[in-house]
Amino acid sequence: LDALQAEVTKAMEGAKSLQDSASSFISRNSSEEQSLRLRAQSLDSTIRRLRSQIYSLHHHDNKAVDPKLCEKLEEDLHRATCVLTDGDAGSFLPPKAHGGFLRMFLGPINVRSSSKDIQLKVKEEYNAYRDRTALLFLLFPFALLILRSWIWDGCLPTFPVQAYQAWLLFLYTGLSLRENILRVNGSDIRPWWIYHHYCAMFMAMVSLTWDIQGQPNCAQKQRGVELFLQWAMMQGVAMLLQNRYQRQRLYTRIALGKANRMDVVWGETAGVDGQLWLLCPILFIMQGFEAYVGLQLLKTALFGDVTEWQVSLCGVLLILMAIGNFVNTVQTLMVKSRF
Amino acid sequence: LDALQAEVTKAMEGAKSLQDSASSFISRNSSEEQSLRLRAQSLDSTIRRLRSQIYSLHHHDNKAVDPKLCEKLEEDLHRATCVLTDGDAGSFLPPKAHGGFLRMFLGPINVRSSSKDIQLKVKEEYNAYRDRTALLFLLFPFALLILRSWIWDGCLPTFPVQAYQAWLLFLYTGLSLRENILRVNGSDIRPWWIYHHYCAMFMAMVSLTWDIQGQPNCAQKQRGVELFLQWAMMQGVAMLLQNRYQRQRLYTRIALGKANRMDVVWGETAGVDGQLWLLCPILFIMQGFEAYVGLQLLKTALFGDVTEWQVSLCGVLLILMAIGNFVNTVQTLMVKSRF
Ligand SMILES: CC(C)(COP(=O)(O)OP(=O)(O)OC[C@H]1O[C@@H](n2cnc3c(N)ncnc32)[C@H](O)[C@@H]1OP(=O)(O)O)[C@@H](O)C(=O)NCCC(=O)NCCS
Ligand SMILES: CC(C)(COP(=O)(O)OP(=O)(O)OC[C@H]1O[C@@H](n2cnc3c(N)ncnc32)[C@H](O)[C@@H]1OP(=O)(O)O)[C@@H](O)C(=O)NCCC(=O)NCCS
Repeated sequence: LDALQAEVTKAMEGAKSLQDSASSFISRNSSEEQSLRLRAQSLDSTIRRLRSQIYSLHHHDNKAVDPKLCEKLEEDLHRATCVLTDGDAGSFLPPKAHGGFLRMFLGPINVRSSSKDIQLKVKEEYNAYRDRTALLFLLFPFALLILRSWIWDGCLPTFPVQAYQAWLLFLYTGLSLRENILRVNGSDIRPWWIYHHYCAMFMAMVSLTWDIQGQPNCAQKQRGVELFLQWAMMQGVAMLLQNRYQRQRLYTRIALGKANRMDVVWGETAGVDGQLWLLCPILFIMQGFEAYVGLQLLKTALFGDVTEWQVSLCGVLLILMAIGNFVNTVQTLMVKSRF
Repeated sequence: LDALQAEVTKAMEGAKSLQDSASSFISRNSSEEQSLRLRAQSLDSTIRRLRSQIYSLHHHDNKAVDPKLCEKLEEDLHRATCVLTDGDAGSFLPPKAHGGFLRMFLGPINVRSSSKDIQLKVKEEYNAYRDRTALLFLLFPFALLILRSWIWDGCLPTFPVQAYQAWLLFLYTGLSLRENILRVNGSDIRPWWIYHHYCAMFMAMVSLTWDIQGQPNCAQKQRGVELFLQWAMMQGVAMLLQNRYQRQRLYTRIALGKANRMDVVWGETAGVDGQLWLLCPILFIMQGFEAYVGLQLLKTALFGDVTEWQVSLCGVLLILMAIGNFVNTVQTLMVKSRF
């Protein structure tokens, strides 16, 4: 027992000394971090100032300045920005604001990771998650449509469709949260792709309350649902292709040892970017079909005998999402081809 | 222009040197962190081992050992555990597993904060969030019930009720996420309170699909909804009281300068814990009413003319939640009175 007593005392002392080291480590760190943060911030604002000065010199048709030199300076500044934001120093820049969505669901917790490794892991996991869901995206509506003609005599029962909508709701909530987190961790994802998932969440919620049975002419009433399911299957295929492209893009970057955006020039990832020209026609077709489904829903709601508000709202949402997707895909392509 | 060129070069150099300091800071830190982590882990396992040794000595009716001494050693060990887990050292213990819920919605991002200040802030924000929602919890069903008798002639329209259920769904999702985050950050919240919110999420989802109109006898069909709304109002009141109690408990701890659980003994927070004996009867009444509403729903589903599966499922869920809440409240009280 004496030996035990000694051990307990030792454990107690160990705990105290560990506590001391831990708190001195933390306080030492926080002051050093603070100074790094200040340096990063002042450098960031210097670069901003220089950029606007050079820009105004360059574009004011001032004959006295050499445009070549201006371009060179702009390039240098771009390089400095890349060093600052893409490397380890990036974690000391003021974080991007969290946005209301994350704050609503998570509160003021910090989801930014300062280590690049973890940031990459989060991104890979996001891609893997999208892959898993893309398969379900394909199979779930497929099963519903098959069962409909084989077993359910052309008239979908309410429950499986609602289960599908509930699944969509959770899926889109998860995607929105993850994309917001990626954004906080420095991803350049366009805000629209996140808004698009908010819209999709809202639509899934609305269609949960939509009673698809209860009228004599079931096939006619469910025409909208059928179109929606077909479109969802197409979306599954498009998601798989898009994932393949985006995963390869990430891996090419990592393989080149160039996690820095600056180092990846158009030529080097040409193999991957070539895929983009294959992917885009498919995306445009999808977006066209999305708008078509939306119009179809609106038509039945306005001129047919379906009077539920859910139908017209879903129609409007689908059309808005199609337009937004199209505009943003075109803008992405334009930015890329400018390189 | 020459001056600008010099400035650009300086900015470039600044970026590079900042990058160097940042990466050396990060790599230095990570090795030091690693060693703190190892020390914390080995101390943790030592304490565990000692505790089980003392426990077996104490409880094997070994006449040779002095029970007083055993108790003293146990108390010392408890103190050592508190120093280890409640102080700064706690951030270097292996984190509690994230749980499937967080992983599903957020992916592998780390939501643990190593600074005690931020952990407290997160908890305060959680309490503030609950306060805001408790008010809505009170007002939303109240408005529905008032409008029902004033304007809607005793028959609730579908849309406002569905909007209410949708709001509940998001609210409970947010609460579940936040509570999971608190848990990862070291809160002792019982797992049941989190499961309870999963149940509530599921119930909100189910009742979204529940068509509350469409039959001739509306008042009878909506009896269940009416009870549910009344119960929700009571819950709003209980939440407000519960928040008041929990916020004061937190503030007492902070004010005493004793964020460590070990230092807070029964007597010191007696003013707050006294409230508990006032709160609990209210909670028990609520839980009884919750079970009553569940039974009522089941009754209409089994013996009435309402055939929707949603009704019986909600009934079962309510009864389960009432039982679980009751059991866990009693267990909490038992643990507290043992001090
Ligand atoms: C057009 C498209 C293929 C371009 O992808 P890209 O080449 O990765 O685009 P960018 O280079 O602008 O990407 C910038 C960032 O945004 C991310 N991103 C781009 N589009 C995204 C999307 N739709 N969803 C999520 N993230 C996206 C990229 O992964 C990249 O992240 P990173 O900075 O962390 O590396 C892609 O935006 C896309 O698939 N859009 C169409 C979506 C659509 O219309 N779907 C139909 C309905 S679902
Ligand atoms: C009984 C009760 C008041 C005890 O609260 P308490 O004194 O804080 O209980 P404990 O000391 O066990 O709390 C341990 C931790 O769990 C948290 N916690 C306890 N009950 C909680 C609950 N219902 N929801 C969220 N967190 C809770 C506490 O904040 C504390 O967190 P901390 O470790 O970070 O400080 C509380 O559990 C309660 O209100 N339960 C009843 C809930 C209920 O039945 N509601 C009816 C339907 S909503």
